[in-house]
Amino acid sequence: MGGNGKLSIILIAFFAIFVSISSAYHYETKEIEVPLDHFSYANNATFKLRYLYNATFAKNHLSPILFYTGNEGDIELFAANTGFQWELASSLQAVVVFAEHRYYGKSLPFGNDSFKSATQFGYLTAEQALADFAFLIDELTDGENNRPVIALGGSYGGMLAAWIRMKYPHKVAGALAASAPIWQFTNLTKCNIFSKILTSVYATGINNDQSNRNCSINIKKSWEVFESYSKTDKGKATLNNAFHFCKGMEITKPEDLQKFFEYLEDVYGNLAMANYPYDNTFLSPLPAYPVAQFCMYLKTAVDNDDLVKSMQQALNVYYNFTGKTKCLDYKSAYEPSMGDAGWDIQTCNEMVMPMCSSGGDDDMFRKKDWSFKEYSDKCFAKYQVRPREREMLIRYGGFNIETASNIIFSNGLLDPWSGGGVMRTSNKKVYIIIIPEGAHHIDLRASNPKDPRSVSEARTIEENIIKSWIQNFYQRTVY
Amino acid sequence: MGGNGKLSIILIAFFAIFVSISSAYHYETKEIEVPLDHFSYANNATFKLRYLYNATFAKNHLSPILFYTGNEGDIELFAANTGFQWELASSLQAVVVFAEHRYYGKSLPFGNDSFKSATQFGYLTAEQALADFAFLIDELTDGENNRPVIALGGSYGGMLAAWIRMKYPHKVAGALAASAPIWQFTNLTKCNIFSKILTSVYATGINNDQSNRNCSINIKKSWEVFESYSKTDKGKATLNNAFHFCKGMEITKPEDLQKFFEYLEDVYGNLAMANYPYDNTFLSPLPAYPVAQFCMYLKTAVDNDDLVKSMQQALNVYYNFTGKTKCLDYKSAYEPSMGDAGWDIQTCNEMVMPMCSSGGDDDMFRKKDWSFKEYSDKCFAKYQVRPREREMLIRYGGFNIETASNIIFSNGLLDPWSGGGVMRTSNKKVYIIIIPEGAHHIDLRASNPKDPRSVSEARTIEENIIKSWIQNFYQRTVY
Repeated sequence: MGGNGKLSIILIAFFAIFVSISSAYHYETKEIEVPLDHFSYANNATFKLRYLYNATFAKNHLSPILFYTGNEGDIELFAANTGFQWELASSLQAVVVFAEHRYYGKSLPFGNDSFKSATQFGYLTAEQALADFAFLIDELTDGENNRPVIALGGSYGGMLAAWIRMKYPHKVAGALAASAPIWQFTNLTKCNIFSKILTSVYATGINNDQSNRNCSINIKKSWEVFESYSKTDKGKATLNNAFHFCKGMEITKPEDLQKFFEYLEDVYGNLAMANYPYDNTFLSPLPAYPVAQFCMYLKTAVDNDDLVKSMQQALNVYYNFTGKTKCLDYKSAYEPSMGDAGWDIQTCNEMVMPMCSSGGDDDMFRKKDWSFKEYSDKCFAKYQVRPREREMLIRYGGFNIETASNIIFSNGLLDPWSGGGVMRTSNKKVYIIIIPEGAHHIDLRASNPKDPRSVSEARTIEENIIKSWIQNFYQRTVY
Repeated sequence: MGGNGKLSIILIAFFAIFVSISSAYHYETKEIEVPLDHFSYANNATFKLRYLYNATFAKNHLSPILFYTGNEGDIELFAANTGFQWELASSLQAVVVFAEHRYYGKSLPFGNDSFKSATQFGYLTAEQALADFAFLIDELTDGENNRPVIALGGSYGGMLAAWIRMKYPHKVAGALAASAPIWQFTNLTKCNIFSKILTSVYATGINNDQSNRNCSINIKKSWEVFESYSKTDKGKATLNNAFHFCKGMEITKPEDLQKFFEYLEDVYGNLAMANYPYDNTFLSPLPAYPVAQFCMYLKTAVDNDDLVKSMQQALNVYYNFTGKTKCLDYKSAYEPSMGDAGWDIQTCNEMVMPMCSSGGDDDMFRKKDWSFKEYSDKCFAKYQVRPREREMLIRYGGFNIETASNIIFSNGLLDPWSGGGVMRTSNKKVYIIIIPEGAHHIDLRASNPKDPRSVSEARTIEENIIKSWIQNFYQRTVY
């Protein structure tokens, strides 16, 4: 999930770096035919859901299954970026399954027409995806209940991992929900929490290193500066010269500036999400601790021209870490592509996650209020579908997770999504793991010598809890 | 639910006796607009779901809500036949709600066209109904989680009560599932259990009174006798004279006999389900312990002519207890009527409950095997829809109810549906109540001086458990 529900940038990067990474893990690519609609019979169509399968670590047909509940993207990309699941599989002698989410990657119910209209994309919902996964698990376990299945997922995939344990506990013995903001819904969490956490990340850098507290101040300042520059020819020239925009993307109209601002907002979110302690290609090729790298250029910054220049250098960290990018393309990220059409639609049916910015001192973003009506109108204009504001609350209970069990909620404090995550509960069967030095579901990534202690410790705790679930499963009788 | 998933007779009786009973309880009739499809966005239609409401027992806006999860029929009939809920409401000072199941009574999404084709009736599923109920509860509680809601239901309504607690535990603090055969699905329960229990009920009568053990023997014998009679003119005459069939219903063709047999099978099921210790009008106007009354005529029975005569007298107990019925109509029960179209459709999409008869000594019915293929083909011929055999198992977990909590499963041993009920579990948070002298969800009926001790005791235990859930609810903190 990108900030404000945008995923585009993530996927574009993913596709770019896919080949280089996926080779690290091996799997068979399989398909299963699932009903398009698990809950009604008005449309009895079926389609082929893709999943990745590796049984080489397993001892036998009763070995555990580690089941990644695929989220918004090509499932191979999640397989490539979820090294911890592969490490777990070898230590637990488990089968590895990565199940693709319907309407992403190659699991398109209507092929290229899948996003044509609600008649086609109307079946793109979390509940239908969970039903796909339950259906697949039933198949993988021959309808028996004799081997433990552990769900794993990060971000929206983490929400699905938690929810499948809540809704299908008979199919899933436990779930690791990493950076899963299941409380980022209406009336649960303040809509500015995301911006607020981002701001503090940019203000404090790594380990509260105060040296770059100017960073968030400069970012906050930049909105007005760019705004005013965009109003004069001289100013426009300064911006356009500074930022090396790609051809035809020079800032000429106010709409251009708005698009550029949206791009920047996503950049800030993505840098923080991928604020890992080592070079990585999770969202785009980035250096270690990219936020600190980015902020290095905004440590001082005196006058406005200087701010523009520094900002350009800082942005290089994000879009041109490789040094190979010719120009700054802040627009194409928003041209709907097959890959990311899905998430935008989901935010317009049930995934209503209120986002806003207070514009206050603790918020480096432009003031932006949350209006469900506006949000709904935009969705209707785009898709002729209106979101159901309370649906996810009714379905999953909001704060009331009293009866949930065997779920680990892990959250990194450097991750803006942690604000909507489960950080406390009185439920003893739900485990909370907080990773002070963690960005977006870093615990799901392959272990790395550069991991801070809090991250490797989190993985050890997670593995031990999952082991205990598996042991309990084999010990217990069904009834 | 009638035997073999037929409900027709139940409803016809219901409609007949409705006026006389409903006057006993008072309520406002309300409506709520709900999405036709809670899980997808391809069809964004909504419709009005009816519910009955009475807040006169409640202390205030935080008082408990007793919520009947309506099953296959007009909700007013369930309100009239669920006296225990009214008694509970007054002792617990609770609000009474009876929610109608979509596609029954007045809650028809497409009015008179609701059963036209899958395009209309395709949204008639248990999951959609549960989502309606969760949606209504959210509305009744203003989206808050500050008052306990207890789900109650009998038969299919009991399955829904259990399932809503399993799927929406954040909306329902506990559930009383009376005579809910949630284990009557494929590979869980032997398909002949229903016939077998029926046979033993007819063989043993009340309190194992051996005097009428000939009853089941005579019923078993009757199939062949009628069969052979139907093959000769003299035999046909005997049958037609004996049974006072309504005009045009005389047995002339083999199909007539088959219809008559199906009718008899339902009669045996319904007499057992309504085998209450007092005159009642649950399925049709019946005397106390109708099975014993019925069997009285079949205690001896020597030759075949005698058997035909006795059977006619016995049948009088069922179709002419009032003495006002002019003739025996064994056919119209099967002409699809708006009221019962729904259940037949549900058995053809997801409610696949295998039924068979072994034809052995412990089975008074004709040998009948279970074939899912035949079943599916019949459904397809009727509705152009094929049932999904494993769907309910995947969705609700079959025997695996380990994580379920706060559910009471009550079953009467005189009820043929008890075979598919939850009669044992290792789950300490699920309560099993067995009522040796109980027929189909007798515990949900108004208390009656003639209730056997086991029935009144069951109600006391149920009330105490529900009280404890309510107390715990008010004590606990949400997180």
